[in-house]
Amino acid sequence: MEVTATKGQIIKGKPVADQISENLIKEVNELVKEGINPKLAIVRVGAKGNDLAYERGALKRCQTIGIETEVIELSEDITQEEYEKALRNLNENKDIHGILCFRPLPKQLNEEEIKYVISPEKDVDCFSPINSAKIMEGDTSGFPPCTPTAVVEILKHYNVELQGANIVVLGRSMVVGKPTAMLLLNENATVTICHSRTKNLEKVTSEADILIAAVGRAKMIKENFIKKGAVVIDVGINVDEDGKLCGDVDTSAVFDKASMITPVPAGVGSVTSSILAKHVVKACKAQNNK
Amino acid sequence: MEVTATKGQIIKGKPVADQISENLIKEVNELVKEGINPKLAIVRVGAKGNDLAYERGALKRCQTIGIETEVIELSEDITQEEYEKALRNLNENKDIHGILCFRPLPKQLNEEEIKYVISPEKDVDCFSPINSAKIMEGDTSGFPPCTPTAVVEILKHYNVELQGANIVVLGRSMVVGKPTAMLLLNENATVTICHSRTKNLEKVTSEADILIAAVGRAKMIKENFIKKGAVVIDVGINVDEDGKLCGDVDTSAVFDKASMITPVPAGVGSVTSSILAKHVVKACKAQNNK
Repeated sequence: MEVTATKGQIIKGKPVADQISENLIKEVNELVKEGINPKLAIVRVGAKGNDLAYERGALKRCQTIGIETEVIELSEDITQEEYEKALRNLNENKDIHGILCFRPLPKQLNEEEIKYVISPEKDVDCFSPINSAKIMEGDTSGFPPCTPTAVVEILKHYNVELQGANIVVLGRSMVVGKPTAMLLLNENATVTICHSRTKNLEKVTSEADILIAAVGRAKMIKENFIKKGAVVIDVGINVDEDGKLCGDVDTSAVFDKASMITPVPAGVGSVTSSILAKHVVKACKAQNNK
Repeated sequence: MEVTATKGQIIKGKPVADQISENLIKEVNELVKEGINPKLAIVRVGAKGNDLAYERGALKRCQTIGIETEVIELSEDITQEEYEKALRNLNENKDIHGILCFRPLPKQLNEEEIKYVISPEKDVDCFSPINSAKIMEGDTSGFPPCTPTAVVEILKHYNVELQGANIVVLGRSMVVGKPTAMLLLNENATVTICHSRTKNLEKVTSEADILIAAVGRAKMIKENFIKKGAVVIDVGINVDEDGKLCGDVDTSAVFDKASMITPVPAGVGSVTSSILAKHVVKACKAQNNK
């Protein structure tokens, strides 16, 4: 898809998600013809609002694409042993190709142990350290987390040149910042990772050709943080003073200076469920030697 | 140790290595008193010059500190099965606390499989993906590779402020560049990773408070790559046109502009065997619940 950058172009997630879905529908049809039915298991403890919202989106996306799903609901007071047993059952179940475990887990569960239990081959959202290591190694056989992958897919979809680009990633979490930095490094970008301890933050960010904001502070990125013509990817999901959803970027303030900017909502968040589906299909193919 | 930075101070590895060794001697004495004898196994295939040189240094360092050693020499035509068996024997041997596998391995061996065989708890030079993941996660219970750890130890020894420092890492290998970047990020530095595809490299490196050179090109870092007063850590080990050992930095050209600079030889390379020893003691303590 050819998109010409104009000043302040809002680049939405939906066209990216739609294109990924379209490709996946073809792939899944081919698999189904051969008697292979890709299937995702979602492991949810309790019924937190965030989990349920993400789950609805994921189930809908999978349904559209033809991926089977199963939700394993576990009670809030589940023990470590029971959780691990449920996960091992899914690891061993040959009908299940991908497993998504909602996190964070409740306090009585030791996430640091559970992350070693999930089968790396079925771990479609990078819970297993094996998949974290693969990101760092540049080994594309693994599964990076869905959000960083969505960031890269959006940039590629809108034909943003990554090779040699000066990219600043603001945030260093294991969910977004660090894996995003590693994925972009693998695309041959020059990557700088900033965070709360960075000095002269505006100076650093305002030298970026591409700025990835993933700090979780409502509208903290103002016009003076941006280089003229920069591409801005807003990964934040926050609530502003009026109770409305907003990103880490003050979109209206930055709009005229940036060349492209993702909105919140309808930006990065719209692409993650398609990445999840893509990972399930990839896992299914690998498990069937396709 | 208090060291005042003066223009062009050469910061050597030996004082860093000596201090680490001194501390380790005390720790090992305590362990030996309790009947615990820290022991390193080195697994070498064939007899390559580089391996033998590193081995000599490691054995000598361990001897000084009181760490026992065992070298497992394997023939150059060893099979995958035999290598894995040798490694499993060391994993299971309770007298062995740390394992160093010389790499790269000969062609008939699949390193991508073997790296999953070594016990992460004994993997003192970051062969296992579990230890790579821990670096990225900022989990200090693991074992980063010795060279990146040596870089951080040198900076700390010479009281170089890392928090908020603008650090540029030149090179993105899994042996040096990427793990060094992650370790320095965990020290709250702002980290930029550069490489062969970076545009305007001199501009990027000349903004660094601290420059880590790990590209493997003799004397490529000239005066114009350096900010006045920068700290320069030279990880390169190359041979110059006169057949002499040299780093990635043209030391004599950079000397006056930098505030501190590590020499080659006698810089980073002098510290790695002490880090190896430190990791063996750490592994020994963890395995004995100390």
